[in-house]
Amino acid sequence: MKQTRTESDSLGQIAVPADAYWGAQTQRSIANFPFAEKERMPLLIVRGLAIVKLAAARVNRRHGLEPATADAIESAAQEVIDGKHDDQFPLVIWQTGSGTQSNMNANEVIAGRANEILTGERGGTQPVHPNDHVNKSQSSNDTFPTALHIAATVMLESDFFPALDRLTGALDAKARAWCDIVKIGRTHLQDATPVTLGQEFSAYVAQLRDNAEAIRFASKGVRPLAQGATAVGTGLNAPDGFGSAMADEISAISGHEFTTAPNKFEALASNDPLVRLSSGLSNLSVSLTKIGNDIRWLGSGPRSGLGELTLPANEPGSSIMPGKVNPTQCEMLTMVAAQVLGNHHAVSIGGMQGAFELNVFKPMIGANVIRSIELLSTGVDSFAERCVEGMEPNRERIAELVDQSLMLVTALAPEIGYDNAAKIAKHAHDLNTTLREAALDLELVDAETFDRVVKPEDMT
Amino acid sequence: MKQTRTESDSLGQIAVPADAYWGAQTQRSIANFPFAEKERMPLLIVRGLAIVKLAAARVNRRHGLEPATADAIESAAQEVIDGKHDDQFPLVIWQTGSGTQSNMNANEVIAGRANEILTGERGGTQPVHPNDHVNKSQSSNDTFPTALHIAATVMLESDFFPALDRLTGALDAKARAWCDIVKIGRTHLQDATPVTLGQEFSAYVAQLRDNAEAIRFASKGVRPLAQGATAVGTGLNAPDGFGSAMADEISAISGHEFTTAPNKFEALASNDPLVRLSSGLSNLSVSLTKIGNDIRWLGSGPRSGLGELTLPANEPGSSIMPGKVNPTQCEMLTMVAAQVLGNHHAVSIGGMQGAFELNVFKPMIGANVIRSIELLSTGVDSFAERCVEGMEPNRERIAELVDQSLMLVTALAPEIGYDNAAKIAKHAHDLNTTLREAALDLELVDAETFDRVVKPEDMT
Amino acid sequence: MKQTRTESDSLGQIAVPADAYWGAQTQRSIANFPFAEKERMPLLIVRGLAIVKLAAARVNRRHGLEPATADAIESAAQEVIDGKHDDQFPLVIWQTGSGTQSNMNANEVIAGRANEILTGERGGTQPVHPNDHVNKSQSSNDTFPTALHIAATVMLESDFFPALDRLTGALDAKARAWCDIVKIGRTHLQDATPVTLGQEFSAYVAQLRDNAEAIRFASKGVRPLAQGATAVGTGLNAPDGFGSAMADEISAISGHEFTTAPNKFEALASNDPLVRLSSGLSNLSVSLTKIGNDIRWLGSGPRSGLGELTLPANEPGSSIMPGKVNPTQCEMLTMVAAQVLGNHHAVSIGGMQGAFELNVFKPMIGANVIRSIELLSTGVDSFAERCVEGMEPNRERIAELVDQSLMLVTALAPEIGYDNAAKIAKHAHDLNTTLREAALDLELVDAETFDRVVKPEDMT
Amino acid sequence: MKQTRTESDSLGQIAVPADAYWGAQTQRSIANFPFAEKERMPLLIVRGLAIVKLAAARVNRRHGLEPATADAIESAAQEVIDGKHDDQFPLVIWQTGSGTQSNMNANEVIAGRANEILTGERGGTQPVHPNDHVNKSQSSNDTFPTALHIAATVMLESDFFPALDRLTGALDAKARAWCDIVKIGRTHLQDATPVTLGQEFSAYVAQLRDNAEAIRFASKGVRPLAQGATAVGTGLNAPDGFGSAMADEISAISGHEFTTAPNKFEALASNDPLVRLSSGLSNLSVSLTKIGNDIRWLGSGPRSGLGELTLPANEPGSSIMPGKVNPTQCEMLTMVAAQVLGNHHAVSIGGMQGAFELNVFKPMIGANVIRSIELLSTGVDSFAERCVEGMEPNRERIAELVDQSLMLVTALAPEIGYDNAAKIAKHAHDLNTTLREAALDLELVDAETFDRVVKPEDMT
Repeated sequence: MKQTRTESDSLGQIAVPADAYWGAQTQRSIANFPFAEKERMPLLIVRGLAIVKLAAARVNRRHGLEPATADAIESAAQEVIDGKHDDQFPLVIWQTGSGTQSNMNANEVIAGRANEILTGERGGTQPVHPNDHVNKSQSSNDTFPTALHIAATVMLESDFFPALDRLTGALDAKARAWCDIVKIGRTHLQDATPVTLGQEFSAYVAQLRDNAEAIRFASKGVRPLAQGATAVGTGLNAPDGFGSAMADEISAISGHEFTTAPNKFEALASNDPLVRLSSGLSNLSVSLTKIGNDIRWLGSGPRSGLGELTLPANEPGSSIMPGKVNPTQCEMLTMVAAQVLGNHHAVSIGGMQGAFELNVFKPMIGANVIRSIELLSTGVDSFAERCVEGMEPNRERIAELVDQSLMLVTALAPEIGYDNAAKIAKHAHDLNTTLREAALDLELVDAETFDRVVKPEDMT
Repeated sequence: MKQTRTESDSLGQIAVPADAYWGAQTQRSIANFPFAEKERMPLLIVRGLAIVKLAAARVNRRHGLEPATADAIESAAQEVIDGKHDDQFPLVIWQTGSGTQSNMNANEVIAGRANEILTGERGGTQPVHPNDHVNKSQSSNDTFPTALHIAATVMLESDFFPALDRLTGALDAKARAWCDIVKIGRTHLQDATPVTLGQEFSAYVAQLRDNAEAIRFASKGVRPLAQGATAVGTGLNAPDGFGSAMADEISAISGHEFTTAPNKFEALASNDPLVRLSSGLSNLSVSLTKIGNDIRWLGSGPRSGLGELTLPANEPGSSIMPGKVNPTQCEMLTMVAAQVLGNHHAVSIGGMQGAFELNVFKPMIGANVIRSIELLSTGVDSFAERCVEGMEPNRERIAELVDQSLMLVTALAPEIGYDNAAKIAKHAHDLNTTLREAALDLELVDAETFDRVVKPEDMT
Repeated sequence: MKQTRTESDSLGQIAVPADAYWGAQTQRSIANFPFAEKERMPLLIVRGLAIVKLAAARVNRRHGLEPATADAIESAAQEVIDGKHDDQFPLVIWQTGSGTQSNMNANEVIAGRANEILTGERGGTQPVHPNDHVNKSQSSNDTFPTALHIAATVMLESDFFPALDRLTGALDAKARAWCDIVKIGRTHLQDATPVTLGQEFSAYVAQLRDNAEAIRFASKGVRPLAQGATAVGTGLNAPDGFGSAMADEISAISGHEFTTAPNKFEALASNDPLVRLSSGLSNLSVSLTKIGNDIRWLGSGPRSGLGELTLPANEPGSSIMPGKVNPTQCEMLTMVAAQVLGNHHAVSIGGMQGAFELNVFKPMIGANVIRSIELLSTGVDSFAERCVEGMEPNRERIAELVDQSLMLVTALAPEIGYDNAAKIAKHAHDLNTTLREAALDLELVDAETFDRVVKPEDMT
Repeated sequence: MKQTRTESDSLGQIAVPADAYWGAQTQRSIANFPFAEKERMPLLIVRGLAIVKLAAARVNRRHGLEPATADAIESAAQEVIDGKHDDQFPLVIWQTGSGTQSNMNANEVIAGRANEILTGERGGTQPVHPNDHVNKSQSSNDTFPTALHIAATVMLESDFFPALDRLTGALDAKARAWCDIVKIGRTHLQDATPVTLGQEFSAYVAQLRDNAEAIRFASKGVRPLAQGATAVGTGLNAPDGFGSAMADEISAISGHEFTTAPNKFEALASNDPLVRLSSGLSNLSVSLTKIGNDIRWLGSGPRSGLGELTLPANEPGSSIMPGKVNPTQCEMLTMVAAQVLGNHHAVSIGGMQGAFELNVFKPMIGANVIRSIELLSTGVDSFAERCVEGMEPNRERIAELVDQSLMLVTALAPEIGYDNAAKIAKHAHDLNTTLREAALDLELVDAETFDRVVKPEDMT
């Protein structure tokens, strides 16, 4: 039987595990929201909360928080930031819609650890009180969205943008390396006029760059922080200038530039900046799906598909078909993309539903945005490393496919008119012959003209 | 300058076109919701409203509505049902969330026409009043969802299910006709063990049948009608038994069996049955996308794609590439599917947002459900007629692709083990040779065994 | 430094941790898909795979699998089912789209454990081979979707339906208990004619019952199993009747009735039954959102909201506003609902994108369906227990709100006509007086008639 | 019986109505895609195509197009731009996925009209040929997306941004006018500390401004045009510099600055810029839903709701409840928002699904983007004019609600601690008394301090 101690809050007393740093409100939340462990609030958000608490101790010190208390809070918060108390954050995403319980979890753990530092006794509210000291000048309503913005920013900068850059770079390297490989173009999945493999890949590069620019724009929208709004946006119970001072401290701690939100009422009542960021990620996923699909199709075969690319064989492909190799990185990437689109759908619903001074879908919104960033960071990086960087063109196959194409006839249209060119293509198709033979057979163009005009390499 | 007459409602007087049958409330709605004409409330819903009004006149007659009034209302309503007054329904989808204005539009036009029948003078509220007589024992809150259920049912039965049956039948005919065509199977877009073309198509048939069964189930959910609930579900101001009497009359008029909803509060407060119907259509769209994509891929080429099927050439494919033919019916079908999925998204959002006694997203929900049914009805029927029924297999190409496949090696696995079979496939791939050559070369199986075991036609 | 041993597969040798049961393919997947631990394939799916392996050993025994091998596989599989090897399933959702690697993880762990049972040495492929024995007569392509269907069914029956029943019962108990509490009806958020609180809640009950029936219908769709299809649906390398024999064994093991899918090609190429199940869950989420929103609005206040219900105070509501109590269970429920809608969006995208013989979004689809079922199971049960069962009506407040309503005038409409009734309501509103005073003031009805007709309790 | 003439294309001859300007390909499309008239390709897109044709005639003239031909094409195209031939564009959205048929419809009508100008005979391909002259140096693949970008830009600038500005301005005017009205704040729908009505509205203003900025950013993404790419992005059959010359001419004709897309392969293969624009509109819809919901809730009542605002009474609200007035503009706005979210869902699916050199969901994507812009333009403008501009605060009701709030206790927390403040709130709630009475009763604060600290007007 596990040892407990007694903690209390405004609803009364409750037993908590003796070795836990948390207090009554965390304990109640554990009981009230009995979801599986895998539904825990993402640790990135927990760390975001701890960054807020560290910053707040620094700012509150200037507004009368006792130095000893501030010191202890700072130490405890830093430990949480450093991942030393991850197991002290058992709460799940599915709790109060303001994230109050995760904020209180942070307040309680940091107070509980600060008290231990100061008195040797873990937990409790003396001398450091979770609300009066750790949460001083704050409300869950401004602290939690601030933590979400911090978490998103940190992950975007540390993992997401580098991963996206890597993939863009890997595709760009292929686009440049393959700029001379003339291949069949395909529109409507039908043979069309030629392009180079490099041109095809340059489109992917352009897609990713445009998405990156748009996500960069959206990411700027999460730099302004709600902190300083307190309960409803008025900043009640926080000193003047608290919001900007906090933004400065948080910038210093995190290494990323944050500002204080110009309209604090919006910053609580809506989560629009996160919705827009999520939407940027979902738009990227739309592009990644196209790219992932193209690449697996180009690699289809080996003998009965298009077979223009050879993808790296990272693992055996089949538990029953020996020797099969599958485009598993493409499958992973497009599944991740589908998930991000689904996550955004949830975020979007959450964004619609706030009421008055507070949007109460914050944990769900935050958890989805963080998950989307994390999934894309790993997925995009892995796809670059394990698929794109190792792909090779099958030059022979590519040449074979372009050479037999009927759509090279398009180059003749300015010479002999669209209708005559169409006749040649149809004739070649019906007789299963080459364009050149069909053209000469129909006497619509002479051999010399044909050979001068119909050159795949000049058509790209 | 157009001539007008004066009509009035509880907000006062207003000028309406002299030749219009409608009255004050319709006129206000025109002014208050100035959307483009193409945003008009679907006519199927207007006719649904008229069916309700006709039925109500019949039932109200038994509860004291004067025979002459009832007669005039019935005649006028029948004319609306017959499409004689389509131009009298100018209101748009984007109006009050209960559909009140479209209900009043129906009340006013039918009263206005009934008055003309009785007095020679068009419009007005004497002797037939839009609210007191045409809308007697009804509220918009029960009438409008009733009209939606009628409209959906009529269109499902007259157009949607027959179209789906046609496509299922067309695919099934191909599945049967092609049951002996052995072709390469493809999993992960990679060559796999063989199937017959008929087996491949039998999957589409099964998908459509299962979807049809599920939509049939969902369609039963829109047979119970809200009518009789009046304003909030209590049936206030309607006589006892009004709901069931109305269901009977509506069944008789429409030729489809309707019942009265067992819980009238649900029938106003939620539009769950329409959400479920819409969701059934969106699930079908998921399947249609898969089928449409497969078919255009099988038809890809003609020379540099898979080329296993020839799709009907319904039109020239390109304004610049002569002789190009595209899988346009597949493109239409998959675009329709995407739209239906989008429509369902809107419906789903609407379904979430009702409050208390009334969901006020009814016109948006109704218009999307009706549009989805209409789009699928036409799209599926056209796809059957102009694509599936005319498709032809390219037997030569199909045989060529299956014969060269490495995955036939799978049949050897039970004889020589998975690992040895894998070695043969890898060897054949590396040397670009046949499986048989590779197998004998590696001495992992003798020729006789190979020939006995590796027969594509025995593997399907 | 961790000790390793060497395992191999068709791609060559690889070091695995010495204490792991898994083999080469699991190890490759760990390296190839470096996602965070929280992205692990849900354990319910792992157990589903183990159920398949246990059943397969039983059936394969009848088709020549050596008894000793079969015994060892059965023991090992049973241990996995019992949760004794959860740490041996480190693979994540984001892998090959067929779930091959999770299937191989199961094959390898069960073989590795079976070998330990038989030889004392953990891992390896002797005497029990992951592919040749554990995976005998199976492919990932049929095994993985079979495991998904098992996992979904088990969770639906053990947790989901009971939770939904509990909530339905709790709401029904309130509907019955509150059938005499007359309250203001609200349509368009505007005061309307009265209903009883019981009637209002009866709508929620009806919504849930209809959703339950639809989900029950959809759940029947996941009872047919793909098993027996092997790689592409043909059943190549599996003995005749393998599919039905497996369905029987799986039924026996799981305690739920499964059948063999009538069309195996559909069962691999599409995941339509899971899409439809997911869509049923998303439709339920639409309804739950409405119910959760209504209840939090009815409980809004305590002094400046509607205040008709008192919700249980499960925890302190605010880290800054003392004494605040929030509708946290409603917030949890509606966030869960948004997530399920988002999950379904992802599932739906996955469902669209299969190609030819295999849908390769299976792990993403499966993980989302399982997560939706789990979230709803816990969320719905908790909402019933911690919110609905403890709610109390504020009879005084309810009476006050209905008594002052202007919409009671509706009862007068059949007596004095709609237009006159409207005048009374408008008059009372303009003068901020009671309906009765306004009615008598305008002399549109006498006092006796008014008192006889305008009785809220008769209007419900 | 309607008179016809014979036209022909590469598939052969076909009869077209004698009075139609269009030719064979338009006629085939009418037959091949038999959708209802309301599914017609939006006229804005048709005009976009005509702008391209006008620009192309100007540029082609410099590259050898005969002046007489160019003159006739320019005149005909200008007539289409001016709306003189709207009835000549009968084709629907649901056609080939490249929009080829709508492009050919434009080519044929303009050629048909140009021929009439030059020869007196309507239609045909002499002397002006739809492909060789009107479509010269173009492909549907670059022309159609160019037309979409033009159509979106024109509508955004002419209608959408002005409407959004109007609404922002109207809300801002209220925010300023109401800056002194102290009211109850509400978080979790529960009474919270006070805000001013102006502060509450300032959040809406901020939301709209941030959305406008993001949509402005996205709108810049549709200024680069695909024109010049021709069939696959290589610009085959177009003269050097055609793309930039076209961008210049289109800028001059439309009055909006366009550029030529830097990567033409991306410009055909993806529709990412439209996806991002659509996503911007959907994010705005998220915000509009929140705003519309808040406003209807603030206007709820008149007697049994919150009643803080009076919304304009634009029409009678109920066909059965006399005197009822509903928040119909809010309902319209939130339904429009749901539709735009649904439209974006379809757009997003379309964006995922292109293959290789061409996305073939262009008409669906384009039609949805245009519809979203149109719906929002009208809806937002109407909401500003008919709801926001005419709203009035109910100062008496607002004051009553804030004065009785228990959450004013928050101001005491810094004085007496969170726990003591909570006791006062709980005591007042339990005894149904005022905060002041409860505070003094518990002797936790003296009267003077209470009166000094607890001032709603100082808390905002």
